[in-house]
Amino acid sequence: MNLLLLEPDAVDEEGHARIEGRQADHVRSVLRKHPGDTLRAGVVDGPTGVAIIVGEDERGYDLACTLDVPPAPVIPRIVVLALPRPPVLRRLLAHLASMAVQSIVLLHTARVDKSYWHTPSLRPQSVGAQLRLGLEQGGHTRLPRVELRRRFAPFVHDELPSLLHGARGLVADPQATTICPTDVHAPVVMAVGPEGGFVLDELDRLRAAGLEAVHLGPRILRVEVAVVAMLARLGWT
Amino acid sequence: MNLLLLEPDAVDEEGHARIEGRQADHVRSVLRKHPGDTLRAGVVDGPTGVAIIVGEDERGYDLACTLDVPPAPVIPRIVVLALPRPPVLRRLLAHLASMAVQSIVLLHTARVDKSYWHTPSLRPQSVGAQLRLGLEQGGHTRLPRVELRRRFAPFVHDELPSLLHGARGLVADPQATTICPTDVHAPVVMAVGPEGGFVLDELDRLRAAGLEAVHLGPRILRVEVAVVAMLARLGWT
Repeated sequence: MNLLLLEPDAVDEEGHARIEGRQADHVRSVLRKHPGDTLRAGVVDGPTGVAIIVGEDERGYDLACTLDVPPAPVIPRIVVLALPRPPVLRRLLAHLASMAVQSIVLLHTARVDKSYWHTPSLRPQSVGAQLRLGLEQGGHTRLPRVELRRRFAPFVHDELPSLLHGARGLVADPQATTICPTDVHAPVVMAVGPEGGFVLDELDRLRAAGLEAVHLGPRILRVEVAVVAMLARLGWT
Repeated sequence: MNLLLLEPDAVDEEGHARIEGRQADHVRSVLRKHPGDTLRAGVVDGPTGVAIIVGEDERGYDLACTLDVPPAPVIPRIVVLALPRPPVLRRLLAHLASMAVQSIVLLHTARVDKSYWHTPSLRPQSVGAQLRLGLEQGGHTRLPRVELRRRFAPFVHDELPSLLHGARGLVADPQATTICPTDVHAPVVMAVGPEGGFVLDELDRLRAAGLEAVHLGPRILRVEVAVVAMLARLGWT
């Protein structure tokens, strides 16, 4: 936990807040903080700053917060991701939030197992929890927007073109002849298929919508590796 | 499974092999192959090619292999990694093997929990199994060498300098002022600390040994994300 993330309604006008549960457990048993100690803190989609521990009891901590640093800007990366299997989904949501991407579109494709759409990990509360873990890891407060799109063609035909206004579009494809570019100082929409990849018709449609196929080296990477590798090459400073 | 990985002693001089267990289950229930079908196959640290299924029974498959493509060259990347907690270790071993790194040094550092050295996931059989899963994912046959180093200072003082002969040395450090370079067409020794990072004395010693501190952007990344991000930026084509 590199930042204690607080919900907007958890901090009163005088900067007082209270934490219990998971966050209090972490402060107690990992960070080992006590009254008088300070923590980096921030409010979801809001400012960051410092929280001083002013009280401690068996259930949690009372904090006095000074949150006066404006939130860091969001990184203009839209990640279009074939819905992965639930454990990979949970990890990737946290990783993508830690990397401060702007938004995540979870998309159905031919090789996505339809059962994945019924996982409890897609419920808003679960998605929100993973994203918040990612923000606490990454040390920032920008919550990525997450959209679910259970129909491939309408998304690609009707929504993707407008996402690409002013942005560079890339799709990971092991068969591509161009390697993924590095340090792209422009908004990017990047698409990564499921394990097994996009089918050819899907790749054709993504290219027709304006995405350029790029590869990530000669090895075939797992989805969670490919997503991180692509974002890392694109840069996010 | 993008390549059926066979042990050297599993293929006889006429190219016959048999698979059972996990690999046979995968061929049956995921790839859904039958006699007459072909698979990409390869031998650990040996050539790749094609395996034709020539027989099937309830326990496995008989294969006729033609393995005549020399193995792809290893990628000259030595990953020095503070021993992570066991589930992250297991995933990273597979990811690093899929990315065809040359070797992995698992190192003790001040912030590594000593109990991690007792995990069954460090046993040779478990390490070998994760690496093989990574090769089957990555579609190649180069098994990374894995070394365990339970003492930080002797490794850094006595071994690291010779690993750095002819190689560029980098250590991931969120406080660094230089971003990790991209597409480095030279051997690289790269070091990544534990969750919480190297302590300052460790960073000093790594720098004194010849590693340059580089960052991976303004966010603090989980170890498994940082390792993949760093390798992806360095390139491996």
